[in-house]
Amino acid sequence: MQKNWVALDAIFNPKAVAVIGASDNPGKLGSHVMRSLTEGRYPGLIYPVNPGKEEILGIKTYPTLSRIPDAVDLSIIVLPADQVPKIIMECQEKRVRGIVLITAGFKEIEDKRGERLQREITELASQFGIKIIGPNTFGMVNLHLPINASFTPEFSLVEKGGISFISQSGGMSHLMGFLSLQYKVGFSKIVGLGNRCNVDFAEMVEYLIEDSQTKVIALYMEGIDHPKKLMEIVRTRGREKPILAYKVGRSHTSDRASQFHTGSLAGKHEIYESAFRQTGILTVGSSEELLDTAKALSRCSLPNGNRVAVLSGQAGPGMAACDVCEMEGLSIPPFTPNTQKRVEELLPPLAIRTNPVDMGPAWYDSEAIKGIVHTVMDDGNIDALVICIMFASANRSAVRILTDLLIEKRVNKPILCCFSAPAGIWDNEIKQLEGAGIPNYPTPERAAKTLVNLFRFKKMRK
Amino acid sequence: MQKNWVALDAIFNPKAVAVIGASDNPGKLGSHVMRSLTEGRYPGLIYPVNPGKEEILGIKTYPTLSRIPDAVDLSIIVLPADQVPKIIMECQEKRVRGIVLITAGFKEIEDKRGERLQREITELASQFGIKIIGPNTFGMVNLHLPINASFTPEFSLVEKGGISFISQSGGMSHLMGFLSLQYKVGFSKIVGLGNRCNVDFAEMVEYLIEDSQTKVIALYMEGIDHPKKLMEIVRTRGREKPILAYKVGRSHTSDRASQFHTGSLAGKHEIYESAFRQTGILTVGSSEELLDTAKALSRCSLPNGNRVAVLSGQAGPGMAACDVCEMEGLSIPPFTPNTQKRVEELLPPLAIRTNPVDMGPAWYDSEAIKGIVHTVMDDGNIDALVICIMFASANRSAVRILTDLLIEKRVNKPILCCFSAPAGIWDNEIKQLEGAGIPNYPTPERAAKTLVNLFRFKKMRK
Repeated sequence: MQKNWVALDAIFNPKAVAVIGASDNPGKLGSHVMRSLTEGRYPGLIYPVNPGKEEILGIKTYPTLSRIPDAVDLSIIVLPADQVPKIIMECQEKRVRGIVLITAGFKEIEDKRGERLQREITELASQFGIKIIGPNTFGMVNLHLPINASFTPEFSLVEKGGISFISQSGGMSHLMGFLSLQYKVGFSKIVGLGNRCNVDFAEMVEYLIEDSQTKVIALYMEGIDHPKKLMEIVRTRGREKPILAYKVGRSHTSDRASQFHTGSLAGKHEIYESAFRQTGILTVGSSEELLDTAKALSRCSLPNGNRVAVLSGQAGPGMAACDVCEMEGLSIPPFTPNTQKRVEELLPPLAIRTNPVDMGPAWYDSEAIKGIVHTVMDDGNIDALVICIMFASANRSAVRILTDLLIEKRVNKPILCCFSAPAGIWDNEIKQLEGAGIPNYPTPERAAKTLVNLFRFKKMRK
Repeated sequence: MQKNWVALDAIFNPKAVAVIGASDNPGKLGSHVMRSLTEGRYPGLIYPVNPGKEEILGIKTYPTLSRIPDAVDLSIIVLPADQVPKIIMECQEKRVRGIVLITAGFKEIEDKRGERLQREITELASQFGIKIIGPNTFGMVNLHLPINASFTPEFSLVEKGGISFISQSGGMSHLMGFLSLQYKVGFSKIVGLGNRCNVDFAEMVEYLIEDSQTKVIALYMEGIDHPKKLMEIVRTRGREKPILAYKVGRSHTSDRASQFHTGSLAGKHEIYESAFRQTGILTVGSSEELLDTAKALSRCSLPNGNRVAVLSGQAGPGMAACDVCEMEGLSIPPFTPNTQKRVEELLPPLAIRTNPVDMGPAWYDSEAIKGIVHTVMDDGNIDALVICIMFASANRSAVRILTDLLIEKRVNKPILCCFSAPAGIWDNEIKQLEGAGIPNYPTPERAAKTLVNLFRFKKMRK
């Protein structure tokens, strides 16, 4: 890394971690943090700090940070807010470079003392060259190390992958984590910025652009104090990685709530939208769309144009996909004459044989399905494919053969699937497809909408 | 039932079923149909018909329909199209009143013989008073009997419930079935209309309005030949039950594909939209929205107005819900002074205490959370509630207590939840909530969007 990322590296890749306020009382956040580290199989050294305990979860516990015999890279702090300045002083003495400050009660509270306290710790940390994630955060996870430096041990269940999620809300981080469990989407880092005392979106984005374990940067944003800094970084370095953002605060009420939540005005939504567009950050409208789109951006190539082939195992889901594509600016063009001829050879006349193709009548003829997909993948009129197949007993093996073809025959065109079946039936096929860069979605509409977003992204970055 | 529904009752509640074209060869649809009936625990008599077999799946098999010694109510037909007229004659001789005609190769094929064949069987059936679901259908299921008269045994995994789904696409029926497995939504009947030779949307809607096992009627539609008949039935009798529709064919391509698929022009989408609105059919824009909204309509009361309270365990998801509500015409108003006072007594000043309320800081104080929800449920300024709580170790028990309160204290206001957690953590709580008429959704946006639809429905039907 060119820039001096010592402090952020101490946070995301620490060799030794102290938990200041560690506990074995399940009613305390300090106990959840200890479980997150241990159950999450953090490979480094863990030093619980608690003056009243000899050991916690069987791990030797120290009365103070200074009594820890060895070096500490990261302190996770869960003590009450008024004790935090003193702890930061101790971190400096111990040469700790990174802090995850879970404690709440700073800028976000009505009491003005909270704001003063936040200014105090920010000044201290900056003077010492210490970086703080938080305060008022659930923490963060780096699934590649792995380290779960949060109060939610269940984040360790999330698979390792290429998406890093930077969030202004712990709740939204949890939601994305749980959705990712359901849809088996892998993450690199999930970071709750909290009140952002000296680590903000701008810095995180810059760090993650250089992070080899991050392929896509996904943001959840309410409102920020220094949007220009973020925009400047995205403008100069954003082309190196896809960045997408889900920003709330479109409505009056939500905008107002944001001010209370993290001490920042969400600000005019339109201004953000336009700044995002100009700098090349793709905007999305919901948590599921953020996950769906980030998954595609982390896996597949971008379409060179807006011409889509829709191939389906049943006509209805194909039509639903066509509706979304066409209503949002994609085109479902005719195939080249050669492709058309080949499709007509392979499909009986009772099928829809023009684009969108209904492959249903060829269910029992795996070779026909293979032939159709093969020829359409090569069609010069086609920039991207959406393939929708709903399970039925008759098409179980056709999907196996289709999966093999899709994985074997690589083309430089995005292919998005909706292979839908009861749990357990196509899990292996879907896992293999996704591993080969072909993302699967729960509905035809979500597959199509994600392709729309890939195209929007491509156009914006052109 | 006032009307003569003998034939449709023979289809949906048969005492004895013949499978014409039954098979034990897994490469044949006739084997899947046999498995659907047997694995789906159909409680009536099953008569496989196949001249080459003595028994199939251990069940005595007959060479022809006429050789079956007892009465048959329903014939499920999977023989090739050209044999179907003869079979219908045999059905008439055997006094079979209902047919599920899975066979394809009728009006939907390019060959004009298909259309002629469909006309022929339609005339025969109508002359005999026989009703046909299909041809060119996956079949149908009635989860209350239960009977799975389809080629997909997995439909029997769907839970019994109050939603009946009438679909012009077998693929969309499968998708809805698989989504319902994932989200544990119960269905009454799932019916693939296929080419609708003499059972169309109009007749099915009229039948289901009188069906005590159906609470909500959900339609998937591409385009129909006699929209006026459907509209007339909905206009005169639609108020008896909620009806909602997902219509594709918004785009040019999808409209054109529809013509091939089921032999009907989808027709101008706007005309349908306006006819639906005028007659009181709620329109939705995706398969997931159809399921989400049908679930709410089958479980909870409608809001008396557009004033929503958003209560969340974390601020971010609450804001996402507010955005959807406000952008789509709902209001997030201030509470009455009494409610506001009570919320301020219960929540520390570091929380967002106005609507939307962030209950996060009270996580460890279950009584406070209980008190807030209790007082907001009674607020005269509030017509509906959206409650969003993302799991964290600290709020596990608060949700248990909140669930008990929501179930015990019934108010005549819709309450929609997004309780999100890894699988296994809140499954019981969510099941109990849904059983008590409080639907749960995977994201705050989907909970909010569903409430928007409840309000749209209420307004349309006023």
